[in-house]
Amino acid sequence: MAGNTFGKIFQLSTYGESHGTAIGGIIDGCPAGLNLDLEKIQKELDRRRPGQSDITTQRSESDTVTFLSGIFEGKTTGTPIAFQIPNKDQISKDYSAIKDVYRPSHADFAYDAKYGHRDYRGGGRSSARETAVRVAAGAVAKQFLALSEIKIKAFVSCIAEAELSEGIENLDLSAPENEIRCPDPIVASQMRKLIEEARDSGDSLGGIITCIIENVPAGLGEPVFDKLHANLGKAMLSINAVKGFEIGSGFAAAKMRGSEHNDSFVKSGSKTITKTNYSGGVQGGISNGMNIVFRIAFKPVASIGKSQDTVNNKGEETNIKIEGRHDPCVVPRAVPIVEAMAALVIADHSLINRSTKV
Amino acid sequence: MAGNTFGKIFQLSTYGESHGTAIGGIIDGCPAGLNLDLEKIQKELDRRRPGQSDITTQRSESDTVTFLSGIFEGKTTGTPIAFQIPNKDQISKDYSAIKDVYRPSHADFAYDAKYGHRDYRGGGRSSARETAVRVAAGAVAKQFLALSEIKIKAFVSCIAEAELSEGIENLDLSAPENEIRCPDPIVASQMRKLIEEARDSGDSLGGIITCIIENVPAGLGEPVFDKLHANLGKAMLSINAVKGFEIGSGFAAAKMRGSEHNDSFVKSGSKTITKTNYSGGVQGGISNGMNIVFRIAFKPVASIGKSQDTVNNKGEETNIKIEGRHDPCVVPRAVPIVEAMAALVIADHSLINRSTKV
Amino acid sequence: MAGNTFGKIFQLSTYGESHGTAIGGIIDGCPAGLNLDLEKIQKELDRRRPGQSDITTQRSESDTVTFLSGIFEGKTTGTPIAFQIPNKDQISKDYSAIKDVYRPSHADFAYDAKYGHRDYRGGGRSSARETAVRVAAGAVAKQFLALSEIKIKAFVSCIAEAELSEGIENLDLSAPENEIRCPDPIVASQMRKLIEEARDSGDSLGGIITCIIENVPAGLGEPVFDKLHANLGKAMLSINAVKGFEIGSGFAAAKMRGSEHNDSFVKSGSKTITKTNYSGGVQGGISNGMNIVFRIAFKPVASIGKSQDTVNNKGEETNIKIEGRHDPCVVPRAVPIVEAMAALVIADHSLINRSTKV
Amino acid sequence: MAGNTFGKIFQLSTYGESHGTAIGGIIDGCPAGLNLDLEKIQKELDRRRPGQSDITTQRSESDTVTFLSGIFEGKTTGTPIAFQIPNKDQISKDYSAIKDVYRPSHADFAYDAKYGHRDYRGGGRSSARETAVRVAAGAVAKQFLALSEIKIKAFVSCIAEAELSEGIENLDLSAPENEIRCPDPIVASQMRKLIEEARDSGDSLGGIITCIIENVPAGLGEPVFDKLHANLGKAMLSINAVKGFEIGSGFAAAKMRGSEHNDSFVKSGSKTITKTNYSGGVQGGISNGMNIVFRIAFKPVASIGKSQDTVNNKGEETNIKIEGRHDPCVVPRAVPIVEAMAALVIADHSLINRSTKV
Repeated sequence: MAGNTFGKIFQLSTYGESHGTAIGGIIDGCPAGLNLDLEKIQKELDRRRPGQSDITTQRSESDTVTFLSGIFEGKTTGTPIAFQIPNKDQISKDYSAIKDVYRPSHADFAYDAKYGHRDYRGGGRSSARETAVRVAAGAVAKQFLALSEIKIKAFVSCIAEAELSEGIENLDLSAPENEIRCPDPIVASQMRKLIEEARDSGDSLGGIITCIIENVPAGLGEPVFDKLHANLGKAMLSINAVKGFEIGSGFAAAKMRGSEHNDSFVKSGSKTITKTNYSGGVQGGISNGMNIVFRIAFKPVASIGKSQDTVNNKGEETNIKIEGRHDPCVVPRAVPIVEAMAALVIADHSLINRSTKV
Repeated sequence: MAGNTFGKIFQLSTYGESHGTAIGGIIDGCPAGLNLDLEKIQKELDRRRPGQSDITTQRSESDTVTFLSGIFEGKTTGTPIAFQIPNKDQISKDYSAIKDVYRPSHADFAYDAKYGHRDYRGGGRSSARETAVRVAAGAVAKQFLALSEIKIKAFVSCIAEAELSEGIENLDLSAPENEIRCPDPIVASQMRKLIEEARDSGDSLGGIITCIIENVPAGLGEPVFDKLHANLGKAMLSINAVKGFEIGSGFAAAKMRGSEHNDSFVKSGSKTITKTNYSGGVQGGISNGMNIVFRIAFKPVASIGKSQDTVNNKGEETNIKIEGRHDPCVVPRAVPIVEAMAALVIADHSLINRSTKV
Repeated sequence: MAGNTFGKIFQLSTYGESHGTAIGGIIDGCPAGLNLDLEKIQKELDRRRPGQSDITTQRSESDTVTFLSGIFEGKTTGTPIAFQIPNKDQISKDYSAIKDVYRPSHADFAYDAKYGHRDYRGGGRSSARETAVRVAAGAVAKQFLALSEIKIKAFVSCIAEAELSEGIENLDLSAPENEIRCPDPIVASQMRKLIEEARDSGDSLGGIITCIIENVPAGLGEPVFDKLHANLGKAMLSINAVKGFEIGSGFAAAKMRGSEHNDSFVKSGSKTITKTNYSGGVQGGISNGMNIVFRIAFKPVASIGKSQDTVNNKGEETNIKIEGRHDPCVVPRAVPIVEAMAALVIADHSLINRSTKV
Repeated sequence: MAGNTFGKIFQLSTYGESHGTAIGGIIDGCPAGLNLDLEKIQKELDRRRPGQSDITTQRSESDTVTFLSGIFEGKTTGTPIAFQIPNKDQISKDYSAIKDVYRPSHADFAYDAKYGHRDYRGGGRSSARETAVRVAAGAVAKQFLALSEIKIKAFVSCIAEAELSEGIENLDLSAPENEIRCPDPIVASQMRKLIEEARDSGDSLGGIITCIIENVPAGLGEPVFDKLHANLGKAMLSINAVKGFEIGSGFAAAKMRGSEHNDSFVKSGSKTITKTNYSGGVQGGISNGMNIVFRIAFKPVASIGKSQDTVNNKGEETNIKIEGRHDPCVVPRAVPIVEAMAALVIADHSLINRSTKV
């Protein structure tokens, strides 16, 4: 009810505050008999972790994950897989500046309104630190999906004014990731420059991530409320700083005619495919076997170095200047989070789909 | 699991195919003691029903709702509220054209891939006829929310090239709805013209709906996976033909700086409000007391009068021309559906929120 | 949340009051492609219906079920199966006697305490009339289970002082049911006599039903909270008038030694079975392939013809004599309800089990 | 889906195997603002822990619980409360005897049938060690219930031939617990003698626990499938070794007349109570304000020192003698587990009940 669990069959429950003892989770419903490569899971966490380059926050968290249950002799047993990531960077610092003063566009004010009190250290439960747990769980889901050759690939397609102009089909998504996680090196260097400028001026930037899921069989997703793209949308909108989600044609569909937007079915060998993919791989809420393609908008990080007007918890007007080591742009680090949430959704729907026919 | 239920406490389960005996639903979890005005519920259905003007489909369905349980002496009893809408327009017509041939950008192909067989009459369960049930249930939710003065108002802000340019604050949303459901009469008449053109050329149009929710108290929504806007997003993306969702600044946030996007807190009398509302009324997944504002993109209707290339269920290439009485643009009729889904989400979170504190 | 839905994958949601327009339900999650024999479903309802013999209530309800969705060309489509049973016996009678006065050991007092007001006609939602919906849904589940040769058979093993002394293995459970639904004709006639005496003296009787499920494959049930017998127990305890549930050895286990109670594994051809079955077919919460055997205790019907002391809704002491046509003993009519709930549990766990292995 | 989560609002998810790194859980949905006394939680674990006297297993597990999240400045924050109990007693011993041979009346055979492979060390997930997590979570629930003066008290009422004959009303339940947890010292010493005999002969004993819940307000429980006693029954039947559950009159009701069994309402000061309590505090599935009283039957422990016939995982007949330090009777140690599960059910229904009225 309190929303710390995601999924129906392949289910993740998470816990943990930014500056508590640890964050972690339980994966319940991962089928038995899956050979788990724990190093691959750690590698996904390394893609997300702070301090990985000079354009991310300089907080140094190693984010080492430990598994506590549900794996025996290298294989999942079908029982809950619990895992944990200790909070190492708990510098005992002075929180008096944010204890009583609401940071603009952060969750502080809303938490106090909801709960009456809150763990204010580093944002507590509202901190994006929580997403490390999603990445670890998503890495398990990815290994389950790999059994069916399903591949998930996200990348940065826009940061502020720097935007990919190439169509997806012209990008080399198999090349090694650069630090920006934008597959076009020229656009990536423009993005890097914008991020450096923002960092140096104490400001922050938003952006867009595009995600492609390949080899999803036709038939995943449920017709009415649990449409595949509705659950993908919820998954993405639940990531910190996300303001929008679109699949296939997305908002551009509003200006199109049906005769232009409809995806004609054609034969490709023995397979039925569509000539175009404005549907984004989902029709009537159910995958049609084409690539699933969606885009997610991120707002600029709320923690900025400039002084801002605000109100404190006594209802008095004041101002705040947020100190500390913050990302000028979280979008590159959000790429593995997007992939993880996509993996959780597809894994869950794969299992739900096992009950479709007698 | 099969996704025909929405919500956790204020919960709607639906059933029914386009050309079966009836469609209907059960609302479970509506609190006892609510005086229900059944006429108001019927009026919401009338806003959605086909045949209401010459720019909608000419199918004449009266969509009369009957309540079967859960109401006694005019008040809800706390037990399930079942209701039903008979399918009147079941003309026994010839479905051979669509029985075996997959309509482009419809759910036909995906349903066959998923279930092995399907009720092909009028789209069966994938038909947007199912949304009438959502409207009825949403009308109950609206009456529950009215006890807290919460108001939900959606309107058409874009159809193809015709788009509202005015800021929301300059629109008169209290005026009676026109048939387009666009609050600016000049833009509405441009939209009408575009729809007439599409209708006459056998084509269809997409568009955008904007929705505003007023008087939501601060504190609704759950921090991690059940963020208020994540559940609103899922609700909207589950509506037929929706391709995108954005809240507050939405996709425009990708191009903004934090110093511009952050919503400063200020005092307004004894209340804490924000100077701007790029957050769209939700921060950290929790309502902050400001208006909740979001936008939803609809694709053009897939049923068009032009001949289209496609494939049949034997895997042979063929073509199809869809006969019948279809909407050239569903966006105006989707306005009450958007409001209904918003009402269901807010009602549900209002009840979930009752467990927040000891 | 309000508890009108049962099951996780094969899921039943129900509605309806004793004297409302109709009762009914939605089965969501029944796999597509099941050939449904609707006459068999009606026959199960006939086994439960009132007025079937002179030892049941003389209310004459035909309990005719109609299906509204989810079935096409005789087969389930995988979409929700809605069905409905009209309330025919709505004699507009005088309820003033029970409107304000709490019938002892009925739900009247508890409902008023919970909801503030209630539909007092015939018990409203608390009436056992609601179980007709369970029987209809259970009949669908039975047809799904029949694909795996799973058979469910319940019978009356005790009514007041008349009790089966034979071991289950000596009973002929394939013989046609008598009106008492006790497989030993001599004990059945003793039971009949006790029921007639109770009926004639305005009193009522309790009893016990035994249920056997054959051909359940090993592996159904989940280890910790959703143990197979825990869900069977919940299902049975949710039936009106049930006061106890035991599986296998049950309460007798309290007096046994481990060396006596342990079920040794032995070979039977290529199959591993147990020599005894004190486990009742479930070990560690998971079926082991043996017959599942459990027993359910029913209290005597609360509606009796004798005058009783009670209190009214103004808090004044008074007395009540319940008029009308009540069963002196519901146990024979409860047999199909027990089977239906068992079928729902086993069908649900069969589908849950599909996600166990990669 | 895999059944490692219990409750709807006050929700517990658990993980861990007997000989893994740790066991633990997440409580999600505990309201914010509860002052938690962590020592009281540890004390409940001490009541359950092995090695507490010479009639329990001599395994020495300290069962020290650590809290990782959800508590700040001594109060719950409304975010998930994660906690952990390390497995200290992981003697690296030889499991070859039980690796391939199925222990009679254990879960070994059923687990292999279900999952294909299993963590065989000490029973893995099927070990009753898992119940320590329930006790910790139940101790949190108890503190939440204490805000409403709700008290839960369980005790041993039968071990083999030694049985309490006194009515509940004559027992002094406020006296300090003895090691048997039977409130009658004479019967307790008979029970102790029977346990010593079983221990010395390598055998084991079953028994019965009675549980009383005081001060539950009228109105908890949901009418149809989530009847309060149905959920209590499921909770109890999910505890290892439980074979039966009965509430109020229980199985004895089968032999009673309605005129004897009905609980007349009477006035007691301004309160409405019942003269008798055969209902066990629940009517129509909803609490009526009287004490909730139920009984749970435990089978004798399956691990016994005697040689037993069985089959191995190659399907060959063999025999097994289970070595190690096992409880001859788990019933005394199960008392805090019963109380914990009862606390979880009542806490959950208390929160569910907050949505009952507008």
